[in-house]
Amino acid sequence: MRNSFGHLFRLTTFGESHGVAVGGVIDGMPAGVVIDINFVQNELNRRRPGQSRVTTSRAEADRIEFLSGLFEGKSIGAPIAFAVFNQDQRSQDYDALRTLYRPSHADFTYEAKYGIRDYRGGGRASARITLARCVAGAIAKLALQQHNIHVHAYTSQIGPIALSADYHHYDLNQAEQNIVRCPDSAIARQMEALIMKVKQEGDTLGGIVSCVIQGCPPGLGEPEFSKLHADLGSAMLSINAAKGFEYGDGFASVGHRGSETNDCFTVSDGSVTTSTNHSGGIQGGISNGQDIFFRVAFKPVATLLKPQSTVNQHGQPVTFKAKGRHDPCVVPRAVPIVEAMAAMVIFDHYLLHLTGKF
Amino acid sequence: MRNSFGHLFRLTTFGESHGVAVGGVIDGMPAGVVIDINFVQNELNRRRPGQSRVTTSRAEADRIEFLSGLFEGKSIGAPIAFAVFNQDQRSQDYDALRTLYRPSHADFTYEAKYGIRDYRGGGRASARITLARCVAGAIAKLALQQHNIHVHAYTSQIGPIALSADYHHYDLNQAEQNIVRCPDSAIARQMEALIMKVKQEGDTLGGIVSCVIQGCPPGLGEPEFSKLHADLGSAMLSINAAKGFEYGDGFASVGHRGSETNDCFTVSDGSVTTSTNHSGGIQGGISNGQDIFFRVAFKPVATLLKPQSTVNQHGQPVTFKAKGRHDPCVVPRAVPIVEAMAAMVIFDHYLLHLTGKF
Amino acid sequence: MRNSFGHLFRLTTFGESHGVAVGGVIDGMPAGVVIDINFVQNELNRRRPGQSRVTTSRAEADRIEFLSGLFEGKSIGAPIAFAVFNQDQRSQDYDALRTLYRPSHADFTYEAKYGIRDYRGGGRASARITLARCVAGAIAKLALQQHNIHVHAYTSQIGPIALSADYHHYDLNQAEQNIVRCPDSAIARQMEALIMKVKQEGDTLGGIVSCVIQGCPPGLGEPEFSKLHADLGSAMLSINAAKGFEYGDGFASVGHRGSETNDCFTVSDGSVTTSTNHSGGIQGGISNGQDIFFRVAFKPVATLLKPQSTVNQHGQPVTFKAKGRHDPCVVPRAVPIVEAMAAMVIFDHYLLHLTGKF
Amino acid sequence: MRNSFGHLFRLTTFGESHGVAVGGVIDGMPAGVVIDINFVQNELNRRRPGQSRVTTSRAEADRIEFLSGLFEGKSIGAPIAFAVFNQDQRSQDYDALRTLYRPSHADFTYEAKYGIRDYRGGGRASARITLARCVAGAIAKLALQQHNIHVHAYTSQIGPIALSADYHHYDLNQAEQNIVRCPDSAIARQMEALIMKVKQEGDTLGGIVSCVIQGCPPGLGEPEFSKLHADLGSAMLSINAAKGFEYGDGFASVGHRGSETNDCFTVSDGSVTTSTNHSGGIQGGISNGQDIFFRVAFKPVATLLKPQSTVNQHGQPVTFKAKGRHDPCVVPRAVPIVEAMAAMVIFDHYLLHLTGKF
Repeated sequence: MRNSFGHLFRLTTFGESHGVAVGGVIDGMPAGVVIDINFVQNELNRRRPGQSRVTTSRAEADRIEFLSGLFEGKSIGAPIAFAVFNQDQRSQDYDALRTLYRPSHADFTYEAKYGIRDYRGGGRASARITLARCVAGAIAKLALQQHNIHVHAYTSQIGPIALSADYHHYDLNQAEQNIVRCPDSAIARQMEALIMKVKQEGDTLGGIVSCVIQGCPPGLGEPEFSKLHADLGSAMLSINAAKGFEYGDGFASVGHRGSETNDCFTVSDGSVTTSTNHSGGIQGGISNGQDIFFRVAFKPVATLLKPQSTVNQHGQPVTFKAKGRHDPCVVPRAVPIVEAMAAMVIFDHYLLHLTGKF
Repeated sequence: MRNSFGHLFRLTTFGESHGVAVGGVIDGMPAGVVIDINFVQNELNRRRPGQSRVTTSRAEADRIEFLSGLFEGKSIGAPIAFAVFNQDQRSQDYDALRTLYRPSHADFTYEAKYGIRDYRGGGRASARITLARCVAGAIAKLALQQHNIHVHAYTSQIGPIALSADYHHYDLNQAEQNIVRCPDSAIARQMEALIMKVKQEGDTLGGIVSCVIQGCPPGLGEPEFSKLHADLGSAMLSINAAKGFEYGDGFASVGHRGSETNDCFTVSDGSVTTSTNHSGGIQGGISNGQDIFFRVAFKPVATLLKPQSTVNQHGQPVTFKAKGRHDPCVVPRAVPIVEAMAAMVIFDHYLLHLTGKF
Repeated sequence: MRNSFGHLFRLTTFGESHGVAVGGVIDGMPAGVVIDINFVQNELNRRRPGQSRVTTSRAEADRIEFLSGLFEGKSIGAPIAFAVFNQDQRSQDYDALRTLYRPSHADFTYEAKYGIRDYRGGGRASARITLARCVAGAIAKLALQQHNIHVHAYTSQIGPIALSADYHHYDLNQAEQNIVRCPDSAIARQMEALIMKVKQEGDTLGGIVSCVIQGCPPGLGEPEFSKLHADLGSAMLSINAAKGFEYGDGFASVGHRGSETNDCFTVSDGSVTTSTNHSGGIQGGISNGQDIFFRVAFKPVATLLKPQSTVNQHGQPVTFKAKGRHDPCVVPRAVPIVEAMAAMVIFDHYLLHLTGKF
Repeated sequence: MRNSFGHLFRLTTFGESHGVAVGGVIDGMPAGVVIDINFVQNELNRRRPGQSRVTTSRAEADRIEFLSGLFEGKSIGAPIAFAVFNQDQRSQDYDALRTLYRPSHADFTYEAKYGIRDYRGGGRASARITLARCVAGAIAKLALQQHNIHVHAYTSQIGPIALSADYHHYDLNQAEQNIVRCPDSAIARQMEALIMKVKQEGDTLGGIVSCVIQGCPPGLGEPEFSKLHADLGSAMLSINAAKGFEYGDGFASVGHRGSETNDCFTVSDGSVTTSTNHSGGIQGGISNGQDIFFRVAFKPVATLLKPQSTVNQHGQPVTFKAKGRHDPCVVPRAVPIVEAMAAMVIFDHYLLHLTGKF
């Protein structure tokens, strides 16, 4: 709970936006897996802001440093600790935020909970904390690749602009070819244009990240409380600004009848499979060997370059207008985090599944 | 994990549909709380099928028996074990299911996972297992009532028929006045009519359960991985047939801009509050004192009275048509389970919050 | 924590001495293991008092009832719930204890902790609760037997009468041939005589239970906080009346030098092994393939048939003399519980070890 | 499990002896506690070798660096990450150990478990890892001090030289006045002399650390599986070289009768207390308000400056003689670690106890 996630592959994160470092400790990584540090650094880079004109211009150089758990290029069964040291710990920039409750930020709730908060750049509530997830997700991916399990996330909607078809209709590798991470390049351009427009207005946009997991064997997931989709949902809802999660036909299944949404079993290439996949690859909380897919809704982020009315700790009305950096749409940056969390959940359940091989 | 849920108020469930008993053990219940057994039994009765013509006609008499943890009408700090003994353990009815994979049921995935399954009436995957949640939820409610925290769930959509307004527009106590558990009696009648029609066709319907939690103090929820909405989401997604979860503006927030969805702080009656509640009462994973609300999507249940094509364990094509009992729409029965799980999550975080009162 | 034990093979216990039932739920049992119910019942019978003249005369008929998790004689991967229903729930016998703090019992501490207690027969603090451990231990044993791992516990000391040699010098199967469970029949007779003498005085005796685990493969145990011996120690210290735990040379190693207590490696039958076993089969918290052995100290139980001075809830001096049943030495009855807990710990770590087989 | 310890105050450790850094993450620290970094550094210094002629001469300068969780001198409810960066990461010194199984070290078991190990200086199995415990223990102490709960550990035996009386007979603050940490200065000198003698022989000595916790309120500890002494035992047995644990009268209680070891209740200064304390302050797993005391046995450490016979990975006989640093008796250095772990356990249960204050 709290700052740890996972049953057997377990990430504990630490750090505040402008503290000394942000990082994590991974416990439960099996020994003997080759850890390609360049791959991990690249995965971390994917969440970095400032990589294009549509995202925030904060110039971070987030370099991963491994503190433990690796030896001669491999995991050794010991906890893998890592950190990204913050370059920018100036607090003076944030003095204005010391007593302020920014609208729809966690300033008020943290203070209500703890009676104290690190007000610099969002402190513990900053999206910067998610970089630890990218690192752990990268390591989970390296392990899953050994079993040909792959995770692909992509932007399927920004504001009102949405892909019209599901993942089968796209080459998901194309998603990384544009800055919005949408696999349809024409739609991607529309999304970019909208983001630029909204950025100029100092406003923000939400969107939807879709994700598909391919190659997952049947049998992953626990039947009662750690259903595979429940753990995926918990993981996704823990990402900043996430407001909803659905898998398989999701909310849309409400409008159909059972006879339309049931997945009937059939035999293909000598294996039992389903002829459709409304279930999203999970039945009774357990993977059935089909593609697993789900969608995560992200609200527009709360930091605007527009003046907003709010109050401070003393209950006095204040007008707040954020300065400097501004990320008009966090959705493209959420894509690698969704992927990372999905990889962590699948790998965690992969390990859990091994305990039944008695 | 697996069959336990909760950090400090922790329910472990057990039982198969046609085994000896279905029940649970609650660990972490504080001592000294008066447990009104009639209230608990009534909460359990709410999930019972056969209570009306629109639901299944299986005649269960689910009588709760407490095995431990209560003394002279109060909790004593010891684990509270309870069971409902199954009246109906006949297996012969289910012989036809022994080798069959029912479409969109967990038959195939359980067998893939365990190599063995109790095929009688869904075994461990049966919705009957959820009765343990109603009991634990009832006990959580009794505790929360002492602090004036209340949970209300209701049916907001069945198939295409949906409430047009949010919870503010209804007297939620009216929801229990009709068998679909919809607080708008006119809409409720439409829902009933649709369910009866679909029942005659041997088909099934999905729907949406909405839930609102009132009186929750600020400060509940953990900031990183047990965000209050992440735990609520995990809880809801663990209910049979749940396909999606959203809180606050949820998926709809995707279509709005930050300037439209931000909740600005203001002062009311001397307390800091927000002038709107797009956040659904949770900011940065922590309750802010406003109403918490969320929605859960349920797919149409998989058991149809129509013939369906499937295969058996040997990969042979089989036509399957369910016999006897038939629940055309599980959504009204999901309402008390949503409420119960919500109460459990809130109470769990209430206890967790106490650990900060150092 | 609290009422659950184990990482992956996890027992949650419930029940009070004179409540409705005492039992438990086992989560994490792999599917497909044949569960011999007679074996389980026999293991349970071993802890039963009243089986001989040297133990308490309470006539219990503790019949195990399985409520879930077994189907056609095998585990199915679902939680295994079980209960022993109490025959004797009369509270009137215990009215005298309602306000009293019995010396060295948990009456005072439970009340300090919970503000309320079930005063009937010790309530939750009763040794009767341990029967759940015998059941879970029996199931763990059945699983371990498939891998030729065996656990033997025996009485090595009662009061001042102790075995003079370690387990190599005895046929441990002889321990069950006498009522004190000591593998040396001559010593056993001395122990019996002493117990009878002390019983007549209304007094009680402590003792030591020794345990050896044979066939455990190398590699079980976690290196930092769930060291194999730390988990064994935690398990043993959770048994009623346990006051100490030592493994390998234990406290005696304090008097020797490193050159005397080091276990040097050698090769035997082509395998690396140690030429001595001062370590007790565990090095760095991990099993090394040698026999694992440890000892548990039990104090004399607190219930005497002699008058003792104490106070009641109101701080008034009271003379207390227990009535009726009297167990002058609990050590023989602790033997099967030590064995059960050891089996649970080893099996738990066996499952945990599987998660490294990635 | 694995590399985490504690229920609510939870330490996760990381690092290998000669890796980049050794450290930990504390989750669950309540917000608003003043953290005196000098106090923490001093506590860390206490475990440092090289501080006197009787201990190892390895010159470490272990400087604690906090990476997160503190702001303006206080805890903020966020995870507290910290690290000590290793000065000495040379691996060439350890090349000789690459294939060797040192007697009674964890070389063999780590390799059996993981198939790979960091052979430099013991890697993850090094006692150096315990510095994370000193840091977390120091922080727990700072919290406990606010409630006047204090923990004192001291050396009570080295080899055959033992204190003759219990803690009441000494001024425990004197223990830090000599390098063996024994509160009796005359005995301390004998211990020192023995250690010097054994050091010259290249051999090692074991000993016993005693610990007393004063000011602990009644009600801490869980009644079934996280009994206060079981958690203390688990904590102590997780310290390198620990072989045994006993509390209250411990193993000595075996030789007495119940009438001699029962603690009768009485009233003192208007409060219920016990007239003796054979129980060691814990009854039924729960603190009773009396002093809590226990003892931990440590074996002589395995690293000798004498040649020993062993084998390597290939099963070939090898003679091994350690070079350079040599700690003839680890017991004085274990004292602060025992204290730290005790503080962590008590604080953890203090927090857990708060959850009952509903």
